[in-house]
Amino acid sequence: MKRRATAFPGAVIRAVIRAALGSFALLAATLPPAAGQSTPDPAVDAAQRHVEANAAAILADHAAILKLPNDAANPDDIRKNAEYVAALFATRGFAMELLELDGAPPLVFGRRDAEGATRTIAIYVHYDGQPTNPDDWTNPPFRPTLYSAAIPDGGKPIDFPAEGEPVDPDWRLYARSASDDKAPMTALPAALDALDAEGVALTSNVILIFDGEEERSSPHLEAYLETHKEKFADVDLWLFCDGPTHQSRQPQLVFGVRGVTGLEVTVYGPNRGLHSGHYGNWAPGPGWRLATLLASMKDETGRVLIKNFYKSAEPLTKADRAALAAAPDVDGELRRTFGLAATELDNAPLAERVMLPALNLRGIRSAEVGDAARNVIPPSATASIGLRLVKGDDPANMLDLVEAHIRRQGYHIIREEPDAEVRARYALIAKVTRDGGYPAVRSAMDAPAVGPVIDALKRVAGDDLVLTPSLGGSLPLFMFETASDAPIVILPIANFDNNQHAADENIRLGNLFYGVGAYAAVLTMK
Amino acid sequence: MKRRATAFPGAVIRAVIRAALGSFALLAATLPPAAGQSTPDPAVDAAQRHVEANAAAILADHAAILKLPNDAANPDDIRKNAEYVAALFATRGFAMELLELDGAPPLVFGRRDAEGATRTIAIYVHYDGQPTNPDDWTNPPFRPTLYSAAIPDGGKPIDFPAEGEPVDPDWRLYARSASDDKAPMTALPAALDALDAEGVALTSNVILIFDGEEERSSPHLEAYLETHKEKFADVDLWLFCDGPTHQSRQPQLVFGVRGVTGLEVTVYGPNRGLHSGHYGNWAPGPGWRLATLLASMKDETGRVLIKNFYKSAEPLTKADRAALAAAPDVDGELRRTFGLAATELDNAPLAERVMLPALNLRGIRSAEVGDAARNVIPPSATASIGLRLVKGDDPANMLDLVEAHIRRQGYHIIREEPDAEVRARYALIAKVTRDGGYPAVRSAMDAPAVGPVIDALKRVAGDDLVLTPSLGGSLPLFMFETASDAPIVILPIANFDNNQHAADENIRLGNLFYGVGAYAAVLTMK
Repeated sequence: MKRRATAFPGAVIRAVIRAALGSFALLAATLPPAAGQSTPDPAVDAAQRHVEANAAAILADHAAILKLPNDAANPDDIRKNAEYVAALFATRGFAMELLELDGAPPLVFGRRDAEGATRTIAIYVHYDGQPTNPDDWTNPPFRPTLYSAAIPDGGKPIDFPAEGEPVDPDWRLYARSASDDKAPMTALPAALDALDAEGVALTSNVILIFDGEEERSSPHLEAYLETHKEKFADVDLWLFCDGPTHQSRQPQLVFGVRGVTGLEVTVYGPNRGLHSGHYGNWAPGPGWRLATLLASMKDETGRVLIKNFYKSAEPLTKADRAALAAAPDVDGELRRTFGLAATELDNAPLAERVMLPALNLRGIRSAEVGDAARNVIPPSATASIGLRLVKGDDPANMLDLVEAHIRRQGYHIIREEPDAEVRARYALIAKVTRDGGYPAVRSAMDAPAVGPVIDALKRVAGDDLVLTPSLGGSLPLFMFETASDAPIVILPIANFDNNQHAADENIRLGNLFYGVGAYAAVLTMK
Repeated sequence: MKRRATAFPGAVIRAVIRAALGSFALLAATLPPAAGQSTPDPAVDAAQRHVEANAAAILADHAAILKLPNDAANPDDIRKNAEYVAALFATRGFAMELLELDGAPPLVFGRRDAEGATRTIAIYVHYDGQPTNPDDWTNPPFRPTLYSAAIPDGGKPIDFPAEGEPVDPDWRLYARSASDDKAPMTALPAALDALDAEGVALTSNVILIFDGEEERSSPHLEAYLETHKEKFADVDLWLFCDGPTHQSRQPQLVFGVRGVTGLEVTVYGPNRGLHSGHYGNWAPGPGWRLATLLASMKDETGRVLIKNFYKSAEPLTKADRAALAAAPDVDGELRRTFGLAATELDNAPLAERVMLPALNLRGIRSAEVGDAARNVIPPSATASIGLRLVKGDDPANMLDLVEAHIRRQGYHIIREEPDAEVRARYALIAKVTRDGGYPAVRSAMDAPAVGPVIDALKRVAGDDLVLTPSLGGSLPLFMFETASDAPIVILPIANFDNNQHAADENIRLGNLFYGVGAYAAVLTMK
């Protein structure tokens, strides 16, 4: 197959990085405006030179690791990944161990101390990937395939470049976990190689943990952290290396995630489906009841009407507010992309909205619609409700507030299907099933351990760096807070359109190279 | 198998009939109070004697017709039924024809004129049955099986009695269409035999029509009536022989049915499912919108809030009101049976409620609930809404009222999925798909042609006869009104717990025998 790569630009890595930051294909494909100039920096310069000289080799390294199937459902496969990653870092000065718990994939642990370091940073990455259905993929998910651009943008398959040949940062490498979350497993060794090659010293002791079941919600991670708590006793900062860059395609640092919980509410009509003719406007329909109950929870602007729903949310700090004010405005573009004429609370900014708890209707179901609809008064109607929580919100307390609201609407709350006695006694019955869930995490942007990370990233990204107080989504970072008192910062490198969790997952090579620079900067931060 | 039948009571047929009126197994199994005495009557007495002498033979006749599979999906099967029923009445003085239309099962037509008759009554029965899934049945649906009682009441299979052997009216005969609607196809010939055997003359010319696709909503019936309208030109009264007796287990005459229509409403959120973390409380959720819209349509007591929804309903006549006041009160028992602590409008009587149009939520659907629920903001939410109409309500006008209400809530109504332009322009979009439907029918109880039917049935049932101004359910009787100006009366004979449309359909033999008396009385009415 004919190679169609354009020449490697050879510009300074900062420009490469900015140009290469994954274009969110759903947005306009223009580049962000030029960033403020950042000061020369030995670590970033070393990373730049290393990428320029070794782009094809870094790409080959990434392809090599992506050939290993990594669905956590297959213990043999997953162990091969653990051993592979342990070897990667063992050759780069880390003391590596495979920690083990019964029934769990290994937690790969490593440590490399730096001379004279007064700080220990712990870097989290996961080596498992989402399950794949090869039928949905353009190429087999574990046969890494290089493309000249993103497939929906007309990208065509191309041959891998030979060592020393030029590499285009717009190329895409397609494979499961190309971004999520093996990208750090290639970019981090490259950053170490770049620094070690030029003798640029690390400024922190570095702990690594590689999780083998993140895509299954890390069921053993808390136990691992607890079992080996002495290993994490001196952690001053957690660096969580996962996720995509900002929707604006600018690099970002993220200081928190929302918590999550939920509940399912079923309300009842007759104890069997009744003929809607014989009993229609006599027997109460559960759908009307559910609609009325749900409508009482949220007004038409999107404000949640449940008493005290917003009360426990911790107020924003001055730094949070400054960061929100400085965040790139992507809302108008997102509204166009998602086909929304307006968003909640009169187009209130997305970045501000995710700083509040959310009440979401995951689904509603009562009998059938469409061709399957029948003239029946159904026995019940169910709503699945998800909550997103912010710092200060306790999952159980928030569910209590929702239940109190349901009671205030006149409902008797039960935990099992109603029996005849309950039915005879209460006109309004709601079965509530509560999820577990976990709280939000939000690190103070002005915490002493956090400032140097921000400074380090600015050495790479300049003023393009977006400081995001919290992701809208949820990750169980609370367990790292439990394991230590250290703040948590999320440093994503993947392009936004990486098809994370879906078929045709990919990484834009420029984003992989950005990772090399970003890690080099953080490993040498002041 | 040992026969366990109790002796045939041998009491007067009125007592048999009352005792035998299908016990609605869901209600208390007590009998209704003794009716007022009715006057001796040659026709009813003839029917009584005929049933006493020929109970086993009538049962055998019924079993014979029930052996014929009658799913309208199988044209060969359905034609055998048509030919069978034509033969049944050809031997009883009727001129029979199989009317034909392309692609339709035959409409079996018959006529027998009575000497000196000044009135023509047309009797409607259908010979097709609901589709069956034999796996759901205790016995094969077309192998009629006799039971000592209803199966849920502990009934056991018993042998058919030999001719002349006693028959217990509490026995049940299980087979598809045992009640719906082959019961008249056995009871009516028996009534004719009873009258002819004792020389009791019919007082009306009698037209018969047997519909072969009622369970498929009679798609060709209107065309049959139009094509052969000269055959129906002299009809003075339609007698619609289908359905079950009153929930009180008392015999009833019914003077109308509700009309029916419906619509499906889909409201929209983002044009794709969005991550509820990243976009939760920014992107509007369609479930909240649908809940708010639905909640605006009906208040918590059950009153429909759509403007003018009750306006076109024709007021009740004095006779209607008297009949409603005299109707047996089954509401409390129905509430207990259906597990409802209360019904709409503070327990307003069912009989009165069905005299008003109804708005029913047939189903609601948005994304998933239960284990399948995902943390997504779904793209849409759909409600399937059914309307039941009363006399005076036009289906299209009623749907217009619902649409006007949706518009008043701020929605832009569309007929197809919204495109990007519509999405950009309107924050609130509702796709509305309208059903067809048909209007209600309600015959005046004091119409001249109707009075003799009421009198005739009182000769059989005495004061137990319930006069029901309208069923809650719907039948397309409007087409009979269109074909003639004659009133329509529904005369049901089947037990209420006949499992109509379901597995294990059955008829209580006493109800079959009641049919013999009821038809004998109507065929000889003054």
